[in-house]
Amino acid sequence: MVVATLLPELWTEILVPVCAVVGILFSLFQWYVVSRVKLTTDLGASSSGGANNGKNGYGDYLIEEEEGVNDQSVVAKCAEIQTAISEGATSFLFTEYKYVGVFMIFFAVVIFVFLGSVEGFSTKDKPCTYDTTRTCKPALATAAFSTIAFVLGAVTSVLSGFLGMKIATYANARTTLEARKGVGKAFIVAFRSGAVMGFLLAASGLLVLYITINVFKVYYGDDWEGLFEAITGYGLGGSSMALFGRVGGGIYTKAADVGADLVGKIERNIPEDDPRNPAVIADNVGDNVGDIAGMGSDLFGSYAEASCAALVVASISSFGINHDFTAMCYPLLISSMGILVCLITTLFATDFFEIKIVSQIEPALKNQLIISTVIMTVGIAIVSWVGLPSSFTIFNFGAQKVVKNWQLFLCVCVGLWAGLIIGFVTEYYTSNAYSPVQDVADSCRTGAATNVIFGLALGYKSVIIPIFAIAVSIFVSFSFAAMYGVAVAALGMLSTIATGLAIDAYGPISDNAGGIAEMAGMSHRIRERTDALDAAGNTTAAIGKGFAIGSAALVSLALFGAFVSRAGIHTVDVLTPKVIIGLLVGAMLPYWFSAMTMKSVGSAALKMVEEVRRQFNTIPGLMEGTAKPDYATCVKISTDASIKEMIPPGCLVMLTPLIVGFFFGVETLSGVLAGSLVSGVQIAISASNTGGAWDNAKKYIEAGVSEHAKSLGPKGSEPHKAAVIGDTIGDPLKDTSGPSLNILIKLMAVESLVFAPFFATHGGILFKYFD
Amino acid sequence: MVVATLLPELWTEILVPVCAVVGILFSLFQWYVVSRVKLTTDLGASSSGGANNGKNGYGDYLIEEEEGVNDQSVVAKCAEIQTAISEGATSFLFTEYKYVGVFMIFFAVVIFVFLGSVEGFSTKDKPCTYDTTRTCKPALATAAFSTIAFVLGAVTSVLSGFLGMKIATYANARTTLEARKGVGKAFIVAFRSGAVMGFLLAASGLLVLYITINVFKVYYGDDWEGLFEAITGYGLGGSSMALFGRVGGGIYTKAADVGADLVGKIERNIPEDDPRNPAVIADNVGDNVGDIAGMGSDLFGSYAEASCAALVVASISSFGINHDFTAMCYPLLISSMGILVCLITTLFATDFFEIKIVSQIEPALKNQLIISTVIMTVGIAIVSWVGLPSSFTIFNFGAQKVVKNWQLFLCVCVGLWAGLIIGFVTEYYTSNAYSPVQDVADSCRTGAATNVIFGLALGYKSVIIPIFAIAVSIFVSFSFAAMYGVAVAALGMLSTIATGLAIDAYGPISDNAGGIAEMAGMSHRIRERTDALDAAGNTTAAIGKGFAIGSAALVSLALFGAFVSRAGIHTVDVLTPKVIIGLLVGAMLPYWFSAMTMKSVGSAALKMVEEVRRQFNTIPGLMEGTAKPDYATCVKISTDASIKEMIPPGCLVMLTPLIVGFFFGVETLSGVLAGSLVSGVQIAISASNTGGAWDNAKKYIEAGVSEHAKSLGPKGSEPHKAAVIGDTIGDPLKDTSGPSLNILIKLMAVESLVFAPFFATHGGILFKYFD
Repeated sequence: MVVATLLPELWTEILVPVCAVVGILFSLFQWYVVSRVKLTTDLGASSSGGANNGKNGYGDYLIEEEEGVNDQSVVAKCAEIQTAISEGATSFLFTEYKYVGVFMIFFAVVIFVFLGSVEGFSTKDKPCTYDTTRTCKPALATAAFSTIAFVLGAVTSVLSGFLGMKIATYANARTTLEARKGVGKAFIVAFRSGAVMGFLLAASGLLVLYITINVFKVYYGDDWEGLFEAITGYGLGGSSMALFGRVGGGIYTKAADVGADLVGKIERNIPEDDPRNPAVIADNVGDNVGDIAGMGSDLFGSYAEASCAALVVASISSFGINHDFTAMCYPLLISSMGILVCLITTLFATDFFEIKIVSQIEPALKNQLIISTVIMTVGIAIVSWVGLPSSFTIFNFGAQKVVKNWQLFLCVCVGLWAGLIIGFVTEYYTSNAYSPVQDVADSCRTGAATNVIFGLALGYKSVIIPIFAIAVSIFVSFSFAAMYGVAVAALGMLSTIATGLAIDAYGPISDNAGGIAEMAGMSHRIRERTDALDAAGNTTAAIGKGFAIGSAALVSLALFGAFVSRAGIHTVDVLTPKVIIGLLVGAMLPYWFSAMTMKSVGSAALKMVEEVRRQFNTIPGLMEGTAKPDYATCVKISTDASIKEMIPPGCLVMLTPLIVGFFFGVETLSGVLAGSLVSGVQIAISASNTGGAWDNAKKYIEAGVSEHAKSLGPKGSEPHKAAVIGDTIGDPLKDTSGPSLNILIKLMAVESLVFAPFFATHGGILFKYFD
Repeated sequence: MVVATLLPELWTEILVPVCAVVGILFSLFQWYVVSRVKLTTDLGASSSGGANNGKNGYGDYLIEEEEGVNDQSVVAKCAEIQTAISEGATSFLFTEYKYVGVFMIFFAVVIFVFLGSVEGFSTKDKPCTYDTTRTCKPALATAAFSTIAFVLGAVTSVLSGFLGMKIATYANARTTLEARKGVGKAFIVAFRSGAVMGFLLAASGLLVLYITINVFKVYYGDDWEGLFEAITGYGLGGSSMALFGRVGGGIYTKAADVGADLVGKIERNIPEDDPRNPAVIADNVGDNVGDIAGMGSDLFGSYAEASCAALVVASISSFGINHDFTAMCYPLLISSMGILVCLITTLFATDFFEIKIVSQIEPALKNQLIISTVIMTVGIAIVSWVGLPSSFTIFNFGAQKVVKNWQLFLCVCVGLWAGLIIGFVTEYYTSNAYSPVQDVADSCRTGAATNVIFGLALGYKSVIIPIFAIAVSIFVSFSFAAMYGVAVAALGMLSTIATGLAIDAYGPISDNAGGIAEMAGMSHRIRERTDALDAAGNTTAAIGKGFAIGSAALVSLALFGAFVSRAGIHTVDVLTPKVIIGLLVGAMLPYWFSAMTMKSVGSAALKMVEEVRRQFNTIPGLMEGTAKPDYATCVKISTDASIKEMIPPGCLVMLTPLIVGFFFGVETLSGVLAGSLVSGVQIAISASNTGGAWDNAKKYIEAGVSEHAKSLGPKGSEPHKAAVIGDTIGDPLKDTSGPSLNILIKLMAVESLVFAPFFATHGGILFKYFD
């Protein structure tokens, strides 16, 4: 007996795209609000002098005017710097897109050929894989549609990332200018710009996926098994762009940062963000490349993959078998609800409350997480009530498992709340308001060595609770609804992605705003305000990384489960040689990958160092500030080096599943996926928390707010020098090698899923010869 | 049809103990040779002046005499320092033994009660677990005999460790004195002393195990299943002493080292090993405690566990079913052959060749590994030929698998040779003769941060080949002979344990010899010679750690397999919620454990720092060298702090299997064991190689042998300072947290094995309530 959902199919067909469009419109609205902060001097100049009683058109005095700095020249300078950063970012993206284009064409061909070959490129319908009594579309069609979905996923990710970068590099100088009016105004600009990125990405990801499903359905008709197999290409597309965004972007940002610091701070003894440093624009571009485009593509990938994993399992569960479209769309309904919830949540930061003093910034951002989680819990309940039959079955490695709608509600909730717990634990271990970071700062008294030892130990310790949170999520969701449960738990964690991305993107925008204030020679009071914004951004960046890795773990497990189902194996027994060696080697891959990405940063940074040194040595008057450095060359060097250096780690990720699957077969590949998952998640968490803690330990000493902090400072003291060493070590850990591991574990899993039919048919040739 | 072995049972009964006794006698002989170097001044004084033409009774002149230093006072001073070190070591051991004693009594009771409760303390015979048609001894008897075996294993480990420490602290000053006569003479003393430790441990481990089996057989008779289940207690006993040796010893050695350096080198600016530093004796004691007693107990544990794992599987295979004693004793025969092979190998270093110049030291030690491996390959062939039937069956998770004798030969060989490969890869990554360490040294140009980043990346990279070597060993041995194959592969790797321990123990002895030379105020030429010995010792120490972790991985897998068999589960399916959460949490444990051990070192070191500061501040004339520091208090502080600080990590190791098994059951425990194995082995390898590389990068700059090295030095240059920071960070990584992970993965596995019947009967109560 088929139990119907409360929500009719037609309503689902209307609600999902409407929510997505609302999200996009909301995003555009935020963009419009940000754009009202003028960056041209013509209007501002005419009004600033006389008409509005020196209030420059606003209700409160501008600091700059009080201090007598020429307003017009500052605005012009900010605009100029912003243009340089924006151009640098665009130039990086367009260079990257050339390689992305080549990669996409090549990989699209690989997908088509590999999947087409499963049935020998036959154009005849074949019996379905799971329900062999019925007839499904030919493997060749699935190959073709998978390829199309792959391209669509990649393009959507690229476009969202591009627009996110555009708004970020559009908002940074505006944040600086608003900081003149007060910390609250600056906060809102930075936050709104982050929200543009968040909503654009979440909504367009949902919209494109929804349209793709409906278009594909025209061909596939009732063959939902084939339809949603083809849709998995969407996840692969999104995820492989994340490889470029996260790994390439991560190398870019740290090469520029470390390169700028090594020559600027150490050799030339000039401060951070000094406009005389030729790498300073590249450094600011890097913040956007790494934390905006990189993080965005990473979370987009997770979102796309989690949806695909849920859909592919649902298609062979009662939802798919009974052709219950509303229940089938449950993952999309969750995401739709998420957009609405995040929209309401955003209003709390932008409209319902106003930030007046510095100490309100961090609570405001943290409240975003709490509010979105609480409201979303209600949202999930509604969706689960109207969007699901009260009882249904879920495919569970060969059998059908009976599941109730409240159980699925709990699956999504456990993921959502685990995300919040991970976020808060990350905050505890990386914010300098708590004892762990303060202890690390204190250890700087006895030098850099103890700082590093304590920082590493902190990172190791910080994995404990997140792992328990992930383990509980997995246990609950897996027990209730097998791999479908895990996939929707991941979607639960990602359902507040728009808010998560907003507070995450807020960080680099504030960071850039500070850099621009410094470069434009604005007063130190402006810099203090942007620094306060930036410090809160450091913590939210760490929280964002926690979310990213937590969701990556769940997503990767869900994909792993989908892969296993699709590859036709029912158990992955550790007590077989094929699996255990896979597990062992898989657990090694994150180390190999980290060694590669850390080396990549080193090599790219060295190239940057050479160029910066060359400019200081050959451009007369550069150190004196009379000549301008050649920023563009540094941007180009970072760009080229990062793309070149991402090839070895990129190959490791892309080739491992292909090689293991082809030569050793699906059992060993299962082991490799499980091993890299359970090992990689630990390194990723510890690396990003260690790095975050070192960064904030340094900031703690520099800020010197408490008595304890003052006893360690000031800037330039021995403990501060030790803290700077820790911060520099942490840079590649927290911004390159750590977050890149998300890509390793997810991309290998989704690639295995897409190629599962090929491996099941043609894989394991090495053992075939041995047996 | 039962196929007989070529070797009759009587011969086996004779050969095994004879080989063990030969090993012990050889060890005593080496001790006797070392003792001929006189440390008293009466004889030397009378002859040195006149009779032998100023040659002091030897064929070549003593340097000291050439340089006019008073020979008698130097000898007296060396003897005095040695006594202090020896007393410090003994005091540590005796304090430790008090806690060991309490722990042993408590844990013996736990074993007895838990295992006795399996059948409700019934004294009646019960049907056997595997062959239910037959009758086995009651569970209560197995509980009692397991407890006895546990105590025997622990006592044997303790005694071997104690004697190893005695000879090491007996030989260090003798090595210093022999260094006056030439580097070759000093090398031989240090090496022979290492050999005493190696042979004593290998031979007594074998002998006690052999006697225990034979005594237990008197009671058990034909019930070999029960007999060898009880024998597993021996492995647990050996392994739990390793917890004290490795973890407690690791904390001791680094607390003393770091504490001495922080005050001495940094605050007081006095050189290493300066006799004015109150912690200097504790530091030298630490080398013995950590590298001699710690490493010895670790490898003893591996050896005992591998033997037990092999025996328990063999007892339910055709060997045990057919009561084929010779085949049953195959693991013991391998070890017996190993003793003979190592004996021959030792002669190559002590008698067949003579070291004349410094550059011959490292090749001589490396040749020991190659020679022993090559001869042992032949030895294994012989043992496999005479000690095994040509065809037999091995228990394979519920089924019997047919195995040929040549397959078992290959299993042992693959372990043996994988050990050699791991050794050489470790050498490549940690010796300053190769590019990896030189690159790390070079990165010190740009400061401590790049040094740390490059060092971490080196450690990560260094896991790749060892993991592939271990994976191949597992695949081959597992495919051929299931878990029995893995166990004998581990035994293969450990078969040359006597040689491995000899070259490993050689390191701290040389290190101590250098310290004594410094403290006794001997000429810098003596110090140069001992430094050369020590540098080679650093590399062999890293190789030893590689062996230890490689064998730990194999042993732990074998124990895991034995546990699973004994717990009565036939598959450990990753695709079940219970197993996957176990896997995830298990992979987290090494991080938790490392965070604990690193913090322990920090806390213990701080206590030492306080005491050293106190002495410098309160003892008048200490800095001027007119007053003597209070060495004993520092030794006591290290001792007490290390024992106290090992409690939290010790509890984590000991309680995890009990808690997981009792509350979550055997499936989750299987996941935890597999997860901690595949994750822990990576951290252990990377931590010890990173630490070793930093240490040798510093030594590379200090030695300044090549042009490149000279450009980075000399001592005190900026790159050298950066290298010192790396070295200090590496200390706890390579000597405490890294090697301690061996204990984590092995001890949890053997504990699970011993308690398997209990968990299978009473475990998993949490899920029972849920289901």
